[in-house]
Amino acid sequence: MKQAELISIGDELLIGQVVNTNAAWMAERLNLIGIPVVQATTIGDDAATIKKTIQESFERADIVLITGGLGPTKDDITKKTLAEFYQSGWKHDIEVENHVRAMFEKRGYTLSDVNLAQADLPEKCTVLMNKMGTAPGMWFEENEKILVSMPGIPYEMKYLMEVEVIPRIQSKFGNQIIVHRTVLTQGVGESVIAAQIEDWENALPRYMKLAYLPSPGCVRLRLSAFGNNQETIKNQVDAQVALLYDMIGDLIFGEGIETLPSVIHQIFKSKNLTLSTAESCTGGLLAQKITALEGASIFFKGAAIVYSNEMKVKLIGVNSETIEKFGAVSQETVQEMLTGALKTFESDYAIATSGFAGPVGGNELNPVGTIYIGIANDQKTIIKKLQLGNNRERNIEIASLSALQLLRKFIQQPNN
Amino acid sequence: MKQAELISIGDELLIGQVVNTNAAWMAERLNLIGIPVVQATTIGDDAATIKKTIQESFERADIVLITGGLGPTKDDITKKTLAEFYQSGWKHDIEVENHVRAMFEKRGYTLSDVNLAQADLPEKCTVLMNKMGTAPGMWFEENEKILVSMPGIPYEMKYLMEVEVIPRIQSKFGNQIIVHRTVLTQGVGESVIAAQIEDWENALPRYMKLAYLPSPGCVRLRLSAFGNNQETIKNQVDAQVALLYDMIGDLIFGEGIETLPSVIHQIFKSKNLTLSTAESCTGGLLAQKITALEGASIFFKGAAIVYSNEMKVKLIGVNSETIEKFGAVSQETVQEMLTGALKTFESDYAIATSGFAGPVGGNELNPVGTIYIGIANDQKTIIKKLQLGNNRERNIEIASLSALQLLRKFIQQPNN
Repeated sequence: MKQAELISIGDELLIGQVVNTNAAWMAERLNLIGIPVVQATTIGDDAATIKKTIQESFERADIVLITGGLGPTKDDITKKTLAEFYQSGWKHDIEVENHVRAMFEKRGYTLSDVNLAQADLPEKCTVLMNKMGTAPGMWFEENEKILVSMPGIPYEMKYLMEVEVIPRIQSKFGNQIIVHRTVLTQGVGESVIAAQIEDWENALPRYMKLAYLPSPGCVRLRLSAFGNNQETIKNQVDAQVALLYDMIGDLIFGEGIETLPSVIHQIFKSKNLTLSTAESCTGGLLAQKITALEGASIFFKGAAIVYSNEMKVKLIGVNSETIEKFGAVSQETVQEMLTGALKTFESDYAIATSGFAGPVGGNELNPVGTIYIGIANDQKTIIKKLQLGNNRERNIEIASLSALQLLRKFIQQPNN
Repeated sequence: MKQAELISIGDELLIGQVVNTNAAWMAERLNLIGIPVVQATTIGDDAATIKKTIQESFERADIVLITGGLGPTKDDITKKTLAEFYQSGWKHDIEVENHVRAMFEKRGYTLSDVNLAQADLPEKCTVLMNKMGTAPGMWFEENEKILVSMPGIPYEMKYLMEVEVIPRIQSKFGNQIIVHRTVLTQGVGESVIAAQIEDWENALPRYMKLAYLPSPGCVRLRLSAFGNNQETIKNQVDAQVALLYDMIGDLIFGEGIETLPSVIHQIFKSKNLTLSTAESCTGGLLAQKITALEGASIFFKGAAIVYSNEMKVKLIGVNSETIEKFGAVSQETVQEMLTGALKTFESDYAIATSGFAGPVGGNELNPVGTIYIGIANDQKTIIKKLQLGNNRERNIEIASLSALQLLRKFIQQPNN
């Protein structure tokens, strides 16, 4: 089985100013074509280290994908180092030069020598045109080992992977057979799920592997199986996942690359419904999650981010006496926020949130981490009280995801 | 100089379902106490690989920090592997057991044997109490080399780093001298900045290093200097940064761990001003960025996410004829959104956004990527037209940051 390694180059990664999101994306993309990633290494902009790391990676893997260090600035040395590693001379690629010129012209920027130098490339590489930026990718092939160098900027790397690298790897190595299926859950933690599915997990055949992938407010369960026959493996994975649905179906909101917002999009578009939000403690995160996806304008009417009590009253008609009597963080206020959102936005459904996100605030009755989330249509209301910790970011994230999960259940399982 | 390496363990990282944010955070934290990180490696949940990687890391570094693989589930094997690596027996830590019991009781979860097993630990380690979760950290020390194992869940790791690991490393190794200063810019790309500061960069002394750290809508410039005398180095870094301000001060919005939202918080709180937003294409991201930080309620009155034309009219009083005549994506509509937000929210300042975020939509006059951002108070309005690409996520992010930068300049440099 062909295996890959990833090397991320950049002092910025080792001083911790940039999070390496490339490695995860590339790993997932390679796995989907049956190429497992055995190791991912991050190193600095240092020629000797780069060469040594490449050598070590080739001892474990046949494909090494490198990102970073191709920018026009002085600290970027990857291209020069690769030319040394492959003992290669240089060529000037006129197609790259024309592309760089065109990009600068379009944006109205002044072209400098460092930008034009992007067209100087090691003779031994196949140039991969980067339509998203000025630094091209480089494909080296020697002794049946492949090395690809790409820019570290995520959308440039993704473009090169999709258009150039993945197709070339597939045509060279054909497909290995790995079947993954990932089930997405929201509502309880990793160990609660583990306890519920323990017997099933213990009984899994040896060629299957279950991974728990927790993030705030969401646990993903990925079942992977390896084998020789695509159809057989797929059927067996499907059969196991069906058992999983029997056990914890209530927690499952989707699969694979779905997200709670994408599931909500699908439900509202397919049922021709409309939605609005009235947000206090989530501060716009619900609206942002919904509108981050294309096509939100079809069903999302809008949001009132009513951070102050004054605006809860003025913008969506919460009764000021309700706030006075029960507090802004209360079932009663959330009820009126829901009614107000349905009326103001003339939407079929509304979500409302109010709580103490922390890290300070709260009161005796409702300490930090107390968050009310509610869903309503013109027939029915559900309000749920969450008791979370005192991590603000986490609380806002969990409250938003919990509200979307509550909305999904409200529509898909109206009798629960 | 003592050096560190990071090892992240988890199949979930190699199949790409979880982005490794821990490595960046830990690297930054170690750098701040003068411990450079020389390499960061991600490997799977495999005992032999874990042992081999630790051995190799110890060849380059004196401190190895490991995250991941400490969960209660079957695929987590780090603890067992470390016991083997150090040829250690086992002990049961009653303090950890009591803590696990208390956490479960507080949350109303049922305690299972796998949870209690978190209190079984290698005899040779110093147990680091993890008040944020059930898996404790482990500190091993042998032959002047330190290995620390922590959970992969970011807020648990961060707690252990701040409370246990960093103080212990500092007291053991004292401080190395590295001075960093990071200047944050918004408005133009990496190569435009590079061209503007080229002569200065070329003239930097050898013991200083400049790194460009681009992310969508923001380029950070980190100047690092190494030496023996804290004060001398700091003075020299400060002098160089002062020159940087002379050259590109207009682009700089802050330094270090500041962000545009944190700078806006500071300005509005110190000047006792209030703010609201009326968002179309940014869909709540501006409100979310502002309210993600504690204390937003002091100055942030709220937001109207007016995704539909209907809501632009109804919620904040945009004239429907304006939308009809000029379109929702126009200077004229944004002008009325600003006026409407100031009036509706009774705020001193308002931000408004309207544009085609993409990836599809737009028209001949205003193609995808055309976004109007505006700022107003009761005296003055500034509206700026951005022409971005067709990457929706990127466009929304850049538009939001550009709007916050415009707001900052509007207040801090009112005559520009």
